Amino acid sequence: MAMKIVRAQEAALLINDNDNVGFSGFTSAGCPKAVPLALAERAQAEHAKGNPFRIGVFTGASTGDNIDGALVRANAIKFRTPYQTNNDMRNAINEGSVNYFDLHLSSLAQDLRYGFYGDIDVAIIEASDVTETGEIVPTCGIGIALTAVQMAKLVIVELNEWHPKELCGMHDLLELQNPPNRSEINITNVRSRIGKEYIQTDPAKIVVVKTNIPNDGGCFAPVDEITSKIGENTANFLVGEMRRGTIPESFLPIQSGVGNIANAVLSAIGSNKEIPNFEVYTEVVQDAIIDLLEQGRVTYASGGTLAVSNPYIERIYKNLPFFKDKMILRTSEISNNPEVIRRLGIISMNTAIEADIFGNINSTHIAGSKIMNGLGGSGDFTRNAYISIFLTPSTAKNGDISAFVPMVSHVDHNEHSVKVIISEYGVADLRGKSPRERAECIIENCVHPDYRSLLRKYLKSGAKGQTPVNLYNVFSFHKALLETGSMKNAVIE
Amino acid sequence: MAMKIVRAQEAALLINDNDNVGFSGFTSAGCPKAVPLALAERAQAEHAKGNPFRIGVFTGASTGDNIDGALVRANAIKFRTPYQTNNDMRNAINEGSVNYFDLHLSSLAQDLRYGFYGDIDVAIIEASDVTETGEIVPTCGIGIALTAVQMAKLVIVELNEWHPKELCGMHDLLELQNPPNRSEINITNVRSRIGKEYIQTDPAKIVVVKTNIPNDGGCFAPVDEITSKIGENTANFLVGEMRRGTIPESFLPIQSGVGNIANAVLSAIGSNKEIPNFEVYTEVVQDAIIDLLEQGRVTYASGGTLAVSNPYIERIYKNLPFFKDKMILRTSEISNNPEVIRRLGIISMNTAIEADIFGNINSTHIAGSKIMNGLGGSGDFTRNAYISIFLTPSTAKNGDISAFVPMVSHVDHNEHSVKVIISEYGVADLRGKSPRERAECIIENCVHPDYRSLLRKYLKSGAKGQTPVNLYNVFSFHKALLETGSMKNAVIE
Repeated sequence: MAMKIVRAQEAALLINDNDNVGFSGFTSAGCPKAVPLALAERAQAEHAKGNPFRIGVFTGASTGDNIDGALVRANAIKFRTPYQTNNDMRNAINEGSVNYFDLHLSSLAQDLRYGFYGDIDVAIIEASDVTETGEIVPTCGIGIALTAVQMAKLVIVELNEWHPKELCGMHDLLELQNPPNRSEINITNVRSRIGKEYIQTDPAKIVVVKTNIPNDGGCFAPVDEITSKIGENTANFLVGEMRRGTIPESFLPIQSGVGNIANAVLSAIGSNKEIPNFEVYTEVVQDAIIDLLEQGRVTYASGGTLAVSNPYIERIYKNLPFFKDKMILRTSEISNNPEVIRRLGIISMNTAIEADIFGNINSTHIAGSKIMNGLGGSGDFTRNAYISIFLTPSTAKNGDISAFVPMVSHVDHNEHSVKVIISEYGVADLRGKSPRERAECIIENCVHPDYRSLLRKYLKSGAKGQTPVNLYNVFSFHKALLETGSMKNAVIE
Repeated sequence: MAMKIVRAQEAALLINDNDNVGFSGFTSAGCPKAVPLALAERAQAEHAKGNPFRIGVFTGASTGDNIDGALVRANAIKFRTPYQTNNDMRNAINEGSVNYFDLHLSSLAQDLRYGFYGDIDVAIIEASDVTETGEIVPTCGIGIALTAVQMAKLVIVELNEWHPKELCGMHDLLELQNPPNRSEINITNVRSRIGKEYIQTDPAKIVVVKTNIPNDGGCFAPVDEITSKIGENTANFLVGEMRRGTIPESFLPIQSGVGNIANAVLSAIGSNKEIPNFEVYTEVVQDAIIDLLEQGRVTYASGGTLAVSNPYIERIYKNLPFFKDKMILRTSEISNNPEVIRRLGIISMNTAIEADIFGNINSTHIAGSKIMNGLGGSGDFTRNAYISIFLTPSTAKNGDISAFVPMVSHVDHNEHSVKVIISEYGVADLRGKSPRERAECIIENCVHPDYRSLLRKYLKSGAKGQTPVNLYNVFSFHKALLETGSMKNAVIE
């Protein structure tokens, strides 16, 4: 290879204080691993010498601990967008030592190209292959890699031999033009291919770091009784919609969020015999989707990332031709694109931190202040879905927290976009209902019995109007939790 | 004409209690006028006889008083969606006698076709022309007319001779397919034509009512010092974006909301010499756009409705070839379509009832409970705009209400979608800023000086976290207004 090959530590020296750095990947899948770790070490060395060293971190979504964890522990991050799930990063954000801009995942690539957040100085990309003519083949996740490479003056490629070069062909990579020169995105079904199999750039911009590092894909909690019941309620709801003709008999593509509830719901849909074989158009391809692909229940999966546990990635790599025939990985600008989601008629299924009785959803903040992760792609899908569904257990913390409150302490998805809410108790179909009707529907069908009379009392205490809100009791549940340890002690005046 | 011609009163007899009725129009423009009035009379006669008579009312947006006013005063409406601006309707909604479902305007037509809200039994359409082969030419506004006609078993056409038949050619009418059979919407610039000039339906479904009734297009309040300053701040912001290269030199299409602030902003942009001639892609074409078209400052306008005052509509009808060459009217499914808005790179400008210091917007509810109008198209544009802007005077009610509060009492557009807020004091550019930074930026640049120290005190009282919210003081401004008549008396503990 004629391209410059360096060690990770040397690559880290090419990055300057105050640089904006764009990383490949979406979840820990597809993220570079060696250079960010070397960069964290370098930042600590600079700090020890009394030099400033903090960068802006731009990614597809969350990352591995080698990026968000290591860099934030080294106090090397000044700015972070659009999403994170790392405990150390979360603490730094909530303490105010990192400025965090929580953004719809589909928006970051275009907003970067529009120049809203300044330049991207360096792109760090995990690759399964790279050629002397500047063709870079990503690994398990893409995110903003394409845009970061095009914008960056320097592209550091982590060529990770743990990933087979034969991954080439699983990706579909097309960067959109900026307005006024943007044309249609020619995706008319889940399988549509519109781009190249690799990222093409000027090879003179590239330096290569060779690595052989496994993914750090962990496993989710197993399905328990409550998540299993949520899955069953969801499958039954979808069957009902098919029977009354509001979902076509051929079914529609599914998007599902991340975590054990998503896995439980996919399994329940997969094992429901009234639902035909179906396709997935989503951001995160999880373990459950791989099982369903192997069983033939999912006939095709379009995603932004292969965020599976390591036993699953090994199964995929052993049977790569099978999976390349049934799966495509796209940039986050396309996997989460409103145009495509609305056109394909995606059924979206995401989880909530809390919901209110009028159908607003909090996906991000605890008690309105502390952020958990961020919005992620839930807004991209919810706002544009054929039917948007939110899933949540009715309670948390042994029943002391009700997932359903008088008013959510932070609104990420509002009553105008949220169509259906499902808990282990049942399904609240909010379509066509006024706020008063929605409140009664949610209390009756989704709320834990321990909280139903409290919420009915709140509803009756509300001011006259379209939405019976009582500004004096609106956060009574949250205050009771903070003051007494349980929302059950909420006082409605 | 071989089609059945009846009087309005006879047409009203064809509508049954409990029917779902779809009306043409968007604002009062394009709405039928005679049949809804006859329907209100019929409902009163039925009620006098002890018979039930209440219908579901589906429209493009708000309507004329002959629909929302007359029908609600006759207690003839059981269900209303997606938007209204009528005082009697507003009271009925807030009293709970009409169930109102407030919805993104772009969503109603597709949600109707999906079957989410049941059948459309009757469509009532104002037309400038109708042929024996079932071609219906709309008038000044379309809304959901196309979908309502396709779905309805009976189509009542109000053929209103006040509108010239030569309007034919100003409309572009294409109904989208439902998933999984939906393809790209082939609009790649403001002027793109993708459909027919008329609505085509089975003539056997049509009965015609002949009328000659003028539009009831009123005028907005004149531009005052504050709205004029908001306009100036907006024009200067856009010039700044052009200079730093984040808006292309050829400029981008503008969407503007309804009312005197929108008129003021359009005038300010129109008279700013650094902004080139531009195009409009919007829902509501107002008087100011007509002036700018005549001046050549606006080179083309795509809208959903010609909601101009009657002196302006007369000017347009006298000079119809000029305006047909420079204007196109689309269905609300297309004028407000997320796919098109994002592709064209629309700069959206809408007004707020209140904003909070973290960048969330309330467009609909007073003190969280009483609805004013509804969401309208503001969500369609805000969520998908190139740059989304909200405009508001810093105070209302002689300074006793601050437009900027600790937390909005209802969230219609959240921090993730709102990019810029402008008051008469200045511009808060929220892009890339954390909630803490946004709060400081809004207080410094947009808040009225009388409220800055109160809001700074609130911000300091907030809980530790990404968003410094204080659940105990969060509605202190609203409570002070309710209890003392002024937000200036808010107590922050």
